[in-house]
Amino acid sequence: MNYITAGESHGPQLTGILQGIPAGLHLDINEINDALKARQGGYGRGNRQKIEHDEIQIVGGVRHSITLGSPIALVVKNRDHAHWDKIMNPTDEENNSNTLRKVERPRPGHADLVGGMKYRHRDLRNVLERSSARETAMRVAIGNICKQLLNELGINLVGYVQQIGSIESNNLSTDVSMIEKEIKKNDLRMIDEKDVKQIHDLIDKTKKDGDTLGGIIRVVAENMPAGIGSYVNWDTKLDGKLAMAVMGVNAMKGVSIGDGFKVATQFGSQVMDPIEHSDSGWDRMSDNLGGFEGGMTNGMPIIVKAAMKPIPTLYKPLQTADINTKEISKANVERSDTTAIVPASLVIESVVAIELTKALTDAFDDSSLGRMKEQIANYRQETQDY
Amino acid sequence: MNYITAGESHGPQLTGILQGIPAGLHLDINEINDALKARQGGYGRGNRQKIEHDEIQIVGGVRHSITLGSPIALVVKNRDHAHWDKIMNPTDEENNSNTLRKVERPRPGHADLVGGMKYRHRDLRNVLERSSARETAMRVAIGNICKQLLNELGINLVGYVQQIGSIESNNLSTDVSMIEKEIKKNDLRMIDEKDVKQIHDLIDKTKKDGDTLGGIIRVVAENMPAGIGSYVNWDTKLDGKLAMAVMGVNAMKGVSIGDGFKVATQFGSQVMDPIEHSDSGWDRMSDNLGGFEGGMTNGMPIIVKAAMKPIPTLYKPLQTADINTKEISKANVERSDTTAIVPASLVIESVVAIELTKALTDAFDDSSLGRMKEQIANYRQETQDY
Amino acid sequence: MNYITAGESHGPQLTGILQGIPAGLHLDINEINDALKARQGGYGRGNRQKIEHDEIQIVGGVRHSITLGSPIALVVKNRDHAHWDKIMNPTDEENNSNTLRKVERPRPGHADLVGGMKYRHRDLRNVLERSSARETAMRVAIGNICKQLLNELGINLVGYVQQIGSIESNNLSTDVSMIEKEIKKNDLRMIDEKDVKQIHDLIDKTKKDGDTLGGIIRVVAENMPAGIGSYVNWDTKLDGKLAMAVMGVNAMKGVSIGDGFKVATQFGSQVMDPIEHSDSGWDRMSDNLGGFEGGMTNGMPIIVKAAMKPIPTLYKPLQTADINTKEISKANVERSDTTAIVPASLVIESVVAIELTKALTDAFDDSSLGRMKEQIANYRQETQDY
Amino acid sequence: MNYITAGESHGPQLTGILQGIPAGLHLDINEINDALKARQGGYGRGNRQKIEHDEIQIVGGVRHSITLGSPIALVVKNRDHAHWDKIMNPTDEENNSNTLRKVERPRPGHADLVGGMKYRHRDLRNVLERSSARETAMRVAIGNICKQLLNELGINLVGYVQQIGSIESNNLSTDVSMIEKEIKKNDLRMIDEKDVKQIHDLIDKTKKDGDTLGGIIRVVAENMPAGIGSYVNWDTKLDGKLAMAVMGVNAMKGVSIGDGFKVATQFGSQVMDPIEHSDSGWDRMSDNLGGFEGGMTNGMPIIVKAAMKPIPTLYKPLQTADINTKEISKANVERSDTTAIVPASLVIESVVAIELTKALTDAFDDSSLGRMKEQIANYRQETQDY
Repeated sequence: MNYITAGESHGPQLTGILQGIPAGLHLDINEINDALKARQGGYGRGNRQKIEHDEIQIVGGVRHSITLGSPIALVVKNRDHAHWDKIMNPTDEENNSNTLRKVERPRPGHADLVGGMKYRHRDLRNVLERSSARETAMRVAIGNICKQLLNELGINLVGYVQQIGSIESNNLSTDVSMIEKEIKKNDLRMIDEKDVKQIHDLIDKTKKDGDTLGGIIRVVAENMPAGIGSYVNWDTKLDGKLAMAVMGVNAMKGVSIGDGFKVATQFGSQVMDPIEHSDSGWDRMSDNLGGFEGGMTNGMPIIVKAAMKPIPTLYKPLQTADINTKEISKANVERSDTTAIVPASLVIESVVAIELTKALTDAFDDSSLGRMKEQIANYRQETQDY
Repeated sequence: MNYITAGESHGPQLTGILQGIPAGLHLDINEINDALKARQGGYGRGNRQKIEHDEIQIVGGVRHSITLGSPIALVVKNRDHAHWDKIMNPTDEENNSNTLRKVERPRPGHADLVGGMKYRHRDLRNVLERSSARETAMRVAIGNICKQLLNELGINLVGYVQQIGSIESNNLSTDVSMIEKEIKKNDLRMIDEKDVKQIHDLIDKTKKDGDTLGGIIRVVAENMPAGIGSYVNWDTKLDGKLAMAVMGVNAMKGVSIGDGFKVATQFGSQVMDPIEHSDSGWDRMSDNLGGFEGGMTNGMPIIVKAAMKPIPTLYKPLQTADINTKEISKANVERSDTTAIVPASLVIESVVAIELTKALTDAFDDSSLGRMKEQIANYRQETQDY
Repeated sequence: MNYITAGESHGPQLTGILQGIPAGLHLDINEINDALKARQGGYGRGNRQKIEHDEIQIVGGVRHSITLGSPIALVVKNRDHAHWDKIMNPTDEENNSNTLRKVERPRPGHADLVGGMKYRHRDLRNVLERSSARETAMRVAIGNICKQLLNELGINLVGYVQQIGSIESNNLSTDVSMIEKEIKKNDLRMIDEKDVKQIHDLIDKTKKDGDTLGGIIRVVAENMPAGIGSYVNWDTKLDGKLAMAVMGVNAMKGVSIGDGFKVATQFGSQVMDPIEHSDSGWDRMSDNLGGFEGGMTNGMPIIVKAAMKPIPTLYKPLQTADINTKEISKANVERSDTTAIVPASLVIESVVAIELTKALTDAFDDSSLGRMKEQIANYRQETQDY
Repeated sequence: MNYITAGESHGPQLTGILQGIPAGLHLDINEINDALKARQGGYGRGNRQKIEHDEIQIVGGVRHSITLGSPIALVVKNRDHAHWDKIMNPTDEENNSNTLRKVERPRPGHADLVGGMKYRHRDLRNVLERSSARETAMRVAIGNICKQLLNELGINLVGYVQQIGSIESNNLSTDVSMIEKEIKKNDLRMIDEKDVKQIHDLIDKTKKDGDTLGGIIRVVAENMPAGIGSYVNWDTKLDGKLAMAVMGVNAMKGVSIGDGFKVATQFGSQVMDPIEHSDSGWDRMSDNLGGFEGGMTNGMPIIVKAAMKPIPTLYKPLQTADINTKEISKANVERSDTTAIVPASLVIESVVAIELTKALTDAFDDSSLGRMKEQIANYRQETQDY
């Protein structure tokens, strides 16, 4: 399984191709659109989300809502493109020398300056249009397709917000359906209702200050079979692949599995999850390791955390220098959010769903959903009887 | 550039192949051996290290100590193999039914149980011999070759111990040569002499308790050119690749870049590194982002942190069940360390060196060291003049 | 550089994503459309080509016709889809049980039967819609973008028809511009005008018989730098990659480099291309090896040949069995051509262009066209002065 | 599954690592050594083969002759290295300026000149030591391990010589055990005893002339399951991967599947293999397409042909120029063979075995041989009942 996306933030559309989803999976389009909508929501977002109402179009690999086994082609149109056509038209050459919205004062924390150097751009819009988190809409669509497949295989997962600024939830449940129910009750995708008012105030104040916020995201996945991934070489470890996928999401600066950085401060006897065996097979007495041993799933809930930095675009802009005049100035301001932690929690959920799906399609026959289900059922029985 | 390793902990040898190092690099064998020796040291290690005195053998890709551009083949013999020949001989079939050292009580926190399920082994030695951290000796040798190349390109890096148990160094220097000098003064690879006595006591007490310790490792790399890696897709981001490489090291449960999880709690204005420009080119006023923006290096020191869990093999073993009788019992005990944070710091340094080298060989012509140097020199000039 | 395509033959569109083309390349849309048009032409094609008039749409990675360095997203709409909407609509579920155009009598020589087995399809349309050569339209578009890049780098190539049925051209020129000029003079993309009448007659007669024809395609590429690809391992050899790309085109059963199978019958002294040196550098006295030594380009014209089988869809259909009744019957007939050798020559040209581009972007910095040109110019000078 | 090799022709050893062979396979070391011995044989070989008696050493991934599921490390020592130590010692620096056996007159047809340019070598021995076909000994060892796995899965294959110079066998059998039996009766690995004397004479005369010969190799593989590989994208086609593997063998200039280039001259009705169905499932009435439709296996015998050019090292050397003086001269002469078609037939068999194994380990669970066998048995039943 593999996927790739294309498209600029104000270009005509985002495009994605996802290859390796087995034939015979019924796709619920509404569910994809619900995920796209959830990505656009959350307290603390700016105005662009009022313009966009993302909708998925499937243009390949699916027939009458059933996957064909051939690559799935996906489109999300940028509704805002209409206003940007003269600036971002892919082929029109008339506006080649259009200087409207030209960006020459790179924003610290964004790809602007370094992207300009690398690709020899003198208009940094040529960088930021692709490095923008707009692209993650497509990853959410692709992740939702993977999630629908995982659900068919009995695997559920959810990504949500555990911390914003310094306000942290201490609920560490691994009950996916409970979490899904609770986080729908507020506009922060958090479990604990009690923190919401306080965080709203924090976001409001931060916005007034022209500043931004980050946070911590937690993903829980239940019922992955044991033994997915491998210890045999560095690049066969599934926790490593999850780390790459999570760190590959815009603005992420940290990723951890299970108790993460906390285990570095504990004794071995506090950290390892003791093994049990009963009539229903093998089990663990705790899940401090977040479902991974030796780079493989161990059958316990998978727990992944991601640390997101605040959004770099500040309405009270930071110091930079103009790439032409070299004069010290204030960074460019693009339309932006006060915090994007809520949508980011959907994106992290998505990339985890993608990696778990990829690992399963690597381990089992990914041609047909029916055969994949049979193989996984046999394998689950085998690990239980081990 | 790519590499792969093979070999079991008590098998005849570790083998590694490293492809993509340019021709014309002079390799200092002593330097590789010094790194191997450092990996075997550190306070808190067990007895095996007294048996092994790892030495590198180069058996391909190098002639008279100069790389040829062809794949480099590396061997580290396991001196201990002599005692294990009847148990681990690769081809001898006489001892096929040898039950000496058979492992049937999987250790929580290790690959034992899940590896047995996945590969259908009934002797878990068949798992642990490969999942053992013994393999990292080869990654250190490969990492040191990469480090020698990086040094030739003007890039220096060091990995060291920042925290053991709850005792943390608060020195956050990015001066590689200073760090290298300081950490050689003690047997913990830590910067601050003042913490050493306290940590020795902690390790001694932990050992007496039959328990183990983990810790936090920090790597600093200076002078990488800006613009290595890319934002164009999720799998082109160099910070993501670093995260995978670090999480792919035995026992790692967390990885972060720059200020890592801390940035999740801060305001945007505190986190981003403002941009400066002077006669000597572009610079930043801080390095909170650890040298990465948009998945690309930005020319500032690269800072990577890794959280290591305590070693799962406890002399006061945890609960498990026998894979044959299914009876609850105490886990198997293999010879082990109280903490392996010192050697792990060498391994993390190594995998960071490998990823930085891979990124550079991707970006520039990796056929000949001379041409690579010329291209990088031109590129450095270009980014300075941007 | 990498690319992927998606889309079914009668679905709404073909989609392609091409990543790794440097920033700063001016794309001529008309040139892409001319290649698409040429792919639809050629004597011996059926009626579908009268319905389709393929046109490229660029929907990502390009701004005002200049590449951005981000992935390029491409669309070719299937004009015929309007008539097929009830049969091939991706998401509409109303027509789920539509049995119109259902395919249950697999065609020998096509993917139909085996694809059905693999993906557990009972309507073989689910296979043939993707395995159809319709997909090659997107490969021609992608190949043409690569060709435009190659042209910028001073490299020219052309693919054309050398043989149809048993009628073979014996012109073995390596002069790309001459070939391009000559093959435009007829509707068979052949160099020799003299063969045209005879082949027209052969195609007409074959069509009347309900039969089909294949042929041999030849690609010549001039002015590739020497030393692209490598001998260091099996998967670094550029001739191997070309072989995979060519064999990966629908209906290809053979691929060769230079004099190909003929060299197997000759003496070494007849085959090798003697080396010369003059003031203008290194040269060869012949090009029997088609521009490759040791898996690397040697600076001589690259010559690749491909053997195409006749189209498997016969209007006088072959024996098959119904996948449900298992009764022996005549194979299904889909709208098809008598020969597709002319369009296939464009496709082979395209995949060769793609592989040469990929090899160059691997060898040199592929971020910016300017930097890539500078590096290649330096390298050309270096190999001349060697 | 993946593999990589390292090692120079006169270095201490060849090293190989093969990852992805399932656990639980019993390896017959003698069978590997027999294959290595066969590779050293054949009429027309030179003197080096009298020095080397290749023997495999397994140094990782195997315990008591049973695979562990971890990467397999392989060594073949170069017995000749003892005489070359001063010239080819990997680490000794004393002989750095040793000019013995320095190569400065590049041989046409070899990698010498272009490799020197690419890697900036001034002693072309640095190229030819790796580009030499000596490396194929390791590919034969790896291929034989794959062959042993294939045999366990009920799949048999053989590679042999179909043509030397202009003398061609017209036996086109697909009966692997018959072929294996016949080719052992002569020292040319040919089916037809009748051609042997004539070819011996041809080789003798060619040798006396200081010239060399190539030929055509044919591989037949029986009983591959149908539906391995896929049509969904260009790089999922198994025939394409075979083409790359075959063209990636030293000296190969052409590769074809089934009737290969011949189908280009035939009518569709002559080429396609009609479909049958009986109580024992699906079958074909012929095998002109060599076991492939739509890039997938179709259950018929797989037929691959490879065209090998004559060995470029001529004892009556060709024109070249000295890389330092630039003077026109005679090419360097390295010890070589009159023809290497016999060993090459083993190498081609090996790379075909490797690709078939890789495709099967991709399609099914490759962790444990037992599980792989169960999955393949289920799948074979399913395709029969389709």
